[in-house]
Amino acid sequence: MVDLLRAAVVGATGYTGAELVRLLHGHPGIELVGLFGHSTVGQPVGSVLPSLVGRSEMVRTFEGDVDADLVFCALPHGASAPIVDSLRSAGRVVFDLSADFRLDDADVYRQWYGEHGAPARFGQAVYGLPELHREALRTADLVAVPGCYPTASVLALAPLVSAGVMELGRPIIVDAKSGVSGAGRKVRESTHFTELSEGLRGYSTAGRHRHTPEIEQELSGLAGTGVKVIFSPHLVPMIRGILATAYVEPKGDPAGFTELARQFYAGSPSVHVLDEGSHPDTLWVRGSNRALVSYSLDPRTGWVVAQCAIDNLVKGASGQAIQCANVRFGLPEASGLDHPATWP
Amino acid sequence: MVDLLRAAVVGATGYTGAELVRLLHGHPGIELVGLFGHSTVGQPVGSVLPSLVGRSEMVRTFEGDVDADLVFCALPHGASAPIVDSLRSAGRVVFDLSADFRLDDADVYRQWYGEHGAPARFGQAVYGLPELHREALRTADLVAVPGCYPTASVLALAPLVSAGVMELGRPIIVDAKSGVSGAGRKVRESTHFTELSEGLRGYSTAGRHRHTPEIEQELSGLAGTGVKVIFSPHLVPMIRGILATAYVEPKGDPAGFTELARQFYAGSPSVHVLDEGSHPDTLWVRGSNRALVSYSLDPRTGWVVAQCAIDNLVKGASGQAIQCANVRFGLPEASGLDHPATWP
Amino acid sequence: MVDLLRAAVVGATGYTGAELVRLLHGHPGIELVGLFGHSTVGQPVGSVLPSLVGRSEMVRTFEGDVDADLVFCALPHGASAPIVDSLRSAGRVVFDLSADFRLDDADVYRQWYGEHGAPARFGQAVYGLPELHREALRTADLVAVPGCYPTASVLALAPLVSAGVMELGRPIIVDAKSGVSGAGRKVRESTHFTELSEGLRGYSTAGRHRHTPEIEQELSGLAGTGVKVIFSPHLVPMIRGILATAYVEPKGDPAGFTELARQFYAGSPSVHVLDEGSHPDTLWVRGSNRALVSYSLDPRTGWVVAQCAIDNLVKGASGQAIQCANVRFGLPEASGLDHPATWP
Amino acid sequence: MVDLLRAAVVGATGYTGAELVRLLHGHPGIELVGLFGHSTVGQPVGSVLPSLVGRSEMVRTFEGDVDADLVFCALPHGASAPIVDSLRSAGRVVFDLSADFRLDDADVYRQWYGEHGAPARFGQAVYGLPELHREALRTADLVAVPGCYPTASVLALAPLVSAGVMELGRPIIVDAKSGVSGAGRKVRESTHFTELSEGLRGYSTAGRHRHTPEIEQELSGLAGTGVKVIFSPHLVPMIRGILATAYVEPKGDPAGFTELARQFYAGSPSVHVLDEGSHPDTLWVRGSNRALVSYSLDPRTGWVVAQCAIDNLVKGASGQAIQCANVRFGLPEASGLDHPATWP
Repeated sequence: MVDLLRAAVVGATGYTGAELVRLLHGHPGIELVGLFGHSTVGQPVGSVLPSLVGRSEMVRTFEGDVDADLVFCALPHGASAPIVDSLRSAGRVVFDLSADFRLDDADVYRQWYGEHGAPARFGQAVYGLPELHREALRTADLVAVPGCYPTASVLALAPLVSAGVMELGRPIIVDAKSGVSGAGRKVRESTHFTELSEGLRGYSTAGRHRHTPEIEQELSGLAGTGVKVIFSPHLVPMIRGILATAYVEPKGDPAGFTELARQFYAGSPSVHVLDEGSHPDTLWVRGSNRALVSYSLDPRTGWVVAQCAIDNLVKGASGQAIQCANVRFGLPEASGLDHPATWP
Repeated sequence: MVDLLRAAVVGATGYTGAELVRLLHGHPGIELVGLFGHSTVGQPVGSVLPSLVGRSEMVRTFEGDVDADLVFCALPHGASAPIVDSLRSAGRVVFDLSADFRLDDADVYRQWYGEHGAPARFGQAVYGLPELHREALRTADLVAVPGCYPTASVLALAPLVSAGVMELGRPIIVDAKSGVSGAGRKVRESTHFTELSEGLRGYSTAGRHRHTPEIEQELSGLAGTGVKVIFSPHLVPMIRGILATAYVEPKGDPAGFTELARQFYAGSPSVHVLDEGSHPDTLWVRGSNRALVSYSLDPRTGWVVAQCAIDNLVKGASGQAIQCANVRFGLPEASGLDHPATWP
Repeated sequence: MVDLLRAAVVGATGYTGAELVRLLHGHPGIELVGLFGHSTVGQPVGSVLPSLVGRSEMVRTFEGDVDADLVFCALPHGASAPIVDSLRSAGRVVFDLSADFRLDDADVYRQWYGEHGAPARFGQAVYGLPELHREALRTADLVAVPGCYPTASVLALAPLVSAGVMELGRPIIVDAKSGVSGAGRKVRESTHFTELSEGLRGYSTAGRHRHTPEIEQELSGLAGTGVKVIFSPHLVPMIRGILATAYVEPKGDPAGFTELARQFYAGSPSVHVLDEGSHPDTLWVRGSNRALVSYSLDPRTGWVVAQCAIDNLVKGASGQAIQCANVRFGLPEASGLDHPATWP
Repeated sequence: MVDLLRAAVVGATGYTGAELVRLLHGHPGIELVGLFGHSTVGQPVGSVLPSLVGRSEMVRTFEGDVDADLVFCALPHGASAPIVDSLRSAGRVVFDLSADFRLDDADVYRQWYGEHGAPARFGQAVYGLPELHREALRTADLVAVPGCYPTASVLALAPLVSAGVMELGRPIIVDAKSGVSGAGRKVRESTHFTELSEGLRGYSTAGRHRHTPEIEQELSGLAGTGVKVIFSPHLVPMIRGILATAYVEPKGDPAGFTELARQFYAGSPSVHVLDEGSHPDTLWVRGSNRALVSYSLDPRTGWVVAQCAIDNLVKGASGQAIQCANVRFGLPEASGLDHPATWP
């Protein structure tokens, strides 16, 4: 019997923290040895996370380091960088779910987020999308787990950009729709049930959402040239799920896009490419680490609608972090992550 | 005191029929004198429409004509054409909420819907979008009330297409999201609560939805040239509401788009143009005949995100039909339609 | 042509304020002449209430009195009493939607709410449930509009208590379920979409909800003896609607309960009694001032399940306030309130 | 390493079938070796169950027996009995999720369900509520897994009935609220999204729901006398979850109810008793096999509100079936079932 890897979670009391606890519970190769928080320190986890109601282990104070083989940081951006820095200084392997280390261009970071909280560490992370960076992740000590929107958007487009079969001279339109849990656990007016259920709206459309530069960074890397994206998110009255709808002007014949994507994702256990013309549903991936990708040809215009559906808290956050950890520590990539969706 | 116009509704027992009854209830110039149906004939309306529970007037049999100044036909496409034909032969002024008379090109109709149910009448209707066809509506005896998606899509784009300030050489992308009532009252698998709530999916994307040619017809008419649209609808877990998000490549400076739209819709009481960068919410128009339009400039790409939110059963169907009737009979255009939304 | 009554709304920027504006819009006998607020003074109503987006009249400052024939106060309890006092001192006819004047026993008030904000006025109001207090309302200058839960609970039980056909020696169980708008517009943790949608929970069960004494007061008044109620509210993931389910042990034969209720509500245009064994649905009354009441006999135990469904913001608040005003000023009781529900 | 038990699922294509697949996926002691169906035979499971989209193993034809150590039957009542009979004749250990073997009185069965499909087997099953029948389950070869409503209702009341601390001379009121998945996968009018979301209604109240006799059977068994229940279910616009609210007239001092329940459920890993006065939320158990129980004293009346929240598809169906299998085969009772909820 092999020893289990020992994992800690810092920032255990938000939604991604709760989801890390749930997913690690069933993981055959990693055990959870500690939950660390701020405002909830000293409370039993069961009074902080309703999914654990009745469980009495305490949320502990983070004091610069934790005794663990790997650490998941589930903190808001800005708050994460100094803690990641401290953990890395102590030699820990860190999987950071915040935005603090996702961008590789310091100017771009500053433009979207302001001053960085640990500038000396900036640029040291591997972007934690295993489908694109699997090899680099095997030796990474700091992993920047992608945002939920970039995961869905990039997974839909990566095979096409990588193969050079789509026009990149003009901005790519990505119209994204998200459930409300992506806005986090903090109460705010925009997530008040009464004004959100039975309503639908865009927000930060037209290039104002902070996930835009992540998407451009990853697609540009695949393309070998600067790619521009018009990214427009919308808030949908449901708890979980992201659906990204991207509009692709093919270069050449689009007939093989589905097959091309299947080849691209061969060896990627979390991505499933649906048959041409199918439509992924976010309910089909709820609670699971799956990404469902599809391509639909518009015969009237020759364009292709590319879609990807994920659970924003799993493949868009906590599940992806564990997937990265699996890759990093030589476990099967789908370890603890291959369960079906909680459907319906 | 002026006499009230006497209106009948044929097909009174679906959602648009129910909404006609609700909206006509408060109308100062039109009174409802009869409800006609098929499968529900002889039942009290209160047992057919829960919003009228307890009301005892009977659903009547349609026998070729009705005694009324105007008739609203709220029937499915295909079923509507022969009834409209019969009513027109009897000299009635008809407002048809089906798709049967919306298209003006018979070949296009056949391609999307098959054989027409009253070919001799094809092409006789005025397209019932008052914001575009107000003058023609004043003398129309057959009005084809637009679909819900075309209403939202065209209202967002019409001012820009009309003014010649957007590129039309490439297909226009319209990503639309709809509540579930647009699928009608008939029970089907795709509207089963358990598999729809908490999920989000596209359907008939990539140019396969029948509302596509309507949108192209109206925009082409404004442009004076053939316009192509890539129209992709999505089903959102809410009852009412449509949000159309269109992506516009400006020709020239987009700074004045909002002002330009305000001028375009001056004199149109049902359309309100929000400030630049705002986002309309479908909850803000629930139950009302308002259309909220907005434009957001993406400074990084120079493109503009154009949006329009409506209630699909009101401005997207029954309210619009009444708006057309108001125009046709010389009543104030907003008569009976200027109430605020049922918010929240 | 008769003159319109001139109404003002103080506290125009919460949900009941918005609903007053919507309902008065279509009222044939009352016109709205001013909206008064606190934190939103000087803003256009269209930026405060999304249902009025685009409308530019200003929210005005309340300065002790308003020039109007009648005033609706839509303020939180506690905040309402001094303003009501000021308006009454100026001679205005006031319809108060808060809890401040609903109870007629000062000790009971103190026990549930603490010190009263205008003790000299305490006890001067008529309880604004027209179905029970129609005559007193005709001359009332201060009307305490009931809470949403008491309206539904009392309407279900009043005919039975009044007729002396149910056992009152033991506590009456009322299990109530409410949509979320009843919690108001203020953002709080308990109404965060992500932790409320797809969940269901009780709150303040077991006699701890402040609407309990109102229900007991009204039923005791009908019974002529002290009635105890075990009132247990639950929060349901929907915006509007209250369903009260009450459990009745009949005295004598329950066969005639439905007929008895129909007689009790003869002349009450807002209440409709469904056939025995039917179940009212809150969606059937959304946006309307209707109350649907039903009785179902359990043949195995001889007990009766009594239910009432209302829209908490209409018959449970703003619509009921207008209904009271209609009675007070001699207008038809259903004036402006007899429209069908916004269904679906 | 121990051998895994080999399990089959007959009726794999409804919601409880899907949930069995999901839960067995993570089970350390049981492996799934075959899925059997009717109308979907020969289709890949991934095209039948969206949660398995992409998985290619076929749904197989049931031919009277299956090669497995244990069989879960997830069929509708009536359809299940003959298949269970056939499996039992072949010596299989069967866990039947239908209602066919839950009742132990043939007359009562006939009264509620009509003729039985395998009368010779009637009365041979152990009622699969491990918290009440753990010992009998250890040697059971036919287990009748309880309905979702009885599970929640009985778990709330069992400790009190068993301890003789509540009045049983009068009917016990259980007001239950359920998500929509309990109505199954079959499309019907009552589960049409548009007429169900944003609405709330009772159904089969007043002793007409078929789960009533199950509840009475189990409580009567604990009480040693015939107990009557007034059971009133309601349909709530959410996918999963049941909340049962029961009203208890204590015999003697109710102060110790919570502690009494904790003792009763000591050794029951799936039940957690909340602190006195707390309210369980169905979202806190979504996807998990937990039952949350609470007791709230109404100091004004001396009555107690007893509540229990479960996920109707897990502890109310598939999870409970697996829990029974764990007990039957000597595995830890929580094996494969102790994961946290999918929250939020």
